[in-house]
Amino acid sequence: MTLQDAIDQVRAVDRDCRTRAQGCLDRLTKPTGSLGRLEEIAARYAGMTGEERPKVPRTAVFTFAADHGVTEERVSAYPSAVTAQMVLNFLKGGAGVNVLARHVGAEVRVVDIGVAYDFGSLPGLANRKIAHGTRNLLRESAMTRDQAIRALEVGVALAAAAADEGIGLLGAGDMGIGNTTASAAITAVMTVQSVVRITGHGTGVDEAGYQRKIAVIEQALQRHHPDRSDPIDVLAKVGGFEIAGIAGLILGGAARRVPIVLDGFITGAAALIAAGLQPHCRDYLIASHVSVECGHQAVLKHLDLTPLLDLRLRLGEGTGACLGIGLVQAALKILTQMATFQEAGVSARSE
Amino acid sequence: MTLQDAIDQVRAVDRDCRTRAQGCLDRLTKPTGSLGRLEEIAARYAGMTGEERPKVPRTAVFTFAADHGVTEERVSAYPSAVTAQMVLNFLKGGAGVNVLARHVGAEVRVVDIGVAYDFGSLPGLANRKIAHGTRNLLRESAMTRDQAIRALEVGVALAAAAADEGIGLLGAGDMGIGNTTASAAITAVMTVQSVVRITGHGTGVDEAGYQRKIAVIEQALQRHHPDRSDPIDVLAKVGGFEIAGIAGLILGGAARRVPIVLDGFITGAAALIAAGLQPHCRDYLIASHVSVECGHQAVLKHLDLTPLLDLRLRLGEGTGACLGIGLVQAALKILTQMATFQEAGVSARSE
Repeated sequence: MTLQDAIDQVRAVDRDCRTRAQGCLDRLTKPTGSLGRLEEIAARYAGMTGEERPKVPRTAVFTFAADHGVTEERVSAYPSAVTAQMVLNFLKGGAGVNVLARHVGAEVRVVDIGVAYDFGSLPGLANRKIAHGTRNLLRESAMTRDQAIRALEVGVALAAAAADEGIGLLGAGDMGIGNTTASAAITAVMTVQSVVRITGHGTGVDEAGYQRKIAVIEQALQRHHPDRSDPIDVLAKVGGFEIAGIAGLILGGAARRVPIVLDGFITGAAALIAAGLQPHCRDYLIASHVSVECGHQAVLKHLDLTPLLDLRLRLGEGTGACLGIGLVQAALKILTQMATFQEAGVSARSE
Repeated sequence: MTLQDAIDQVRAVDRDCRTRAQGCLDRLTKPTGSLGRLEEIAARYAGMTGEERPKVPRTAVFTFAADHGVTEERVSAYPSAVTAQMVLNFLKGGAGVNVLARHVGAEVRVVDIGVAYDFGSLPGLANRKIAHGTRNLLRESAMTRDQAIRALEVGVALAAAAADEGIGLLGAGDMGIGNTTASAAITAVMTVQSVVRITGHGTGVDEAGYQRKIAVIEQALQRHHPDRSDPIDVLAKVGGFEIAGIAGLILGGAARRVPIVLDGFITGAAALIAAGLQPHCRDYLIASHVSVECGHQAVLKHLDLTPLLDLRLRLGEGTGACLGIGLVQAALKILTQMATFQEAGVSARSE
């Protein structure tokens, strides 16, 4: 599936199916609406997939890893080498996303889409490297337009392949030292907000680094003038390969009617790109949590998504997505496993 | 264990153990503190139990069921008969709490502590009936002081027996048509707030019923003058048997250093009673969620507990507690299953 195929194939969700699922929920042994957002998520899932009584789906969390040339401006608390080190940690199962994915029975798929390190052939690592990291977005475009499209298509293809395998729910995750800088730049452009308002401390940069980070993003936006009506332009000029991959995963998932659970700020920035390319894909997104990273709130507001959790997370990798996946599973089990008033012989309301 | 034994045996949590657990968390491959409230919960659990590297515990959710004489004032949207009908639904596994407990691998234990129905001997039902429902708290004391103490001791004994079995985490749940009226009365007294501010629509009573409910609680408090310095007096005059059982479960759990995950408003009102009897037991509580029921916020504020979830739930039964238990499990797995920086060969911060 090409990028354009994915964009063309995304359809509006099935509102009738959502309504029928809500009707099922209303017959279950509980006061109407009393399971709140679990009911909302179950009904939305039905609308996205067109399945009125969906099974708990097989789930894969895709963690896209890439490096960022902008780290040479010292905008991050950790050295770039950590990106590759963490990829190895993912493959060994020792990272936060591995632990939380196991907790909810999801598989982690690690994708090297642009890490500045040669892993050779490693079991479990999907090698889809576009380049050894982006270029420094302060000085030049982070990637070429062609690279941006290729990176988007990596995500599209992975989502389509996952759908072919029978995976019914996707989690999005990221790893890339420096990627809150790229995400803040994207968010500033796509939500039309000031850089100061949407830039946070990322993994914990100190105050001097934080001020550099803001200045770098402001200067980059002044230099490149990314065109928010052309999300690929924004992605190419100030984005990252993992962000592109996630945006592609969203588009590919939506095209195949597979819901996508977002993680935090980075996957949110990717969702801004995806929704810019195809507004309907917003309806296939589930926001797992709102991050500590301040730009994330602006992202969720722009996408009109209400997060399921607020646990002061700021790790990324897909960790929050895993927790959200657990709640989606719970919601689907409510829809399909609870007894109805009639089955249980429970009296209805007095009125 | 008597009620007084439980009260006497609750100790302050182990702050050193909590600090050591936080030290472990800080060595894991993630920026310090980046898993936010999961880290807080893992460290608190270590402090409660005294285990620095706790295993994911066996977990039981206790759903206490009882009826309320005050339902004859038409304060609820559902008839009293629903309490017994729902008990049967719990035993068949078809209720919300059954579905969500299965989702997190917890056992549901259903306790008849005061249902106005004779179940006979039913497999899976713990018969601890104190009476066939409370009396109408508008006209007389809901129960005698002796009944209140006996109901508290039911909960204490169940928690102690669970601890003896090796259960390391307790969930609290309730079923009782009319019990938001009793809980609002308790909350008004214990948090010293006006009845209007802390009374909600429960399972969905209509506006006329809501006004009756407020009037009933106000009149009951004027008639009985419950003494907030004597929580057993409050419980006896305006409480419920399931609320007493839950308060006892909390005290018994805390006495045995077994953390208790609260559900919504009813279990919160029970926690006010338990914390009134023994302030230290607050430190063994985990607030799973904040309910739609408006009094619940006042409860959590009074107990200084921050809920993990806000999913617009208002079902009770222990449903929210189950979702909270899933997050506690996730938190403990983070503490014990993630790789350290050293193990994974990941570089530390640049500074």
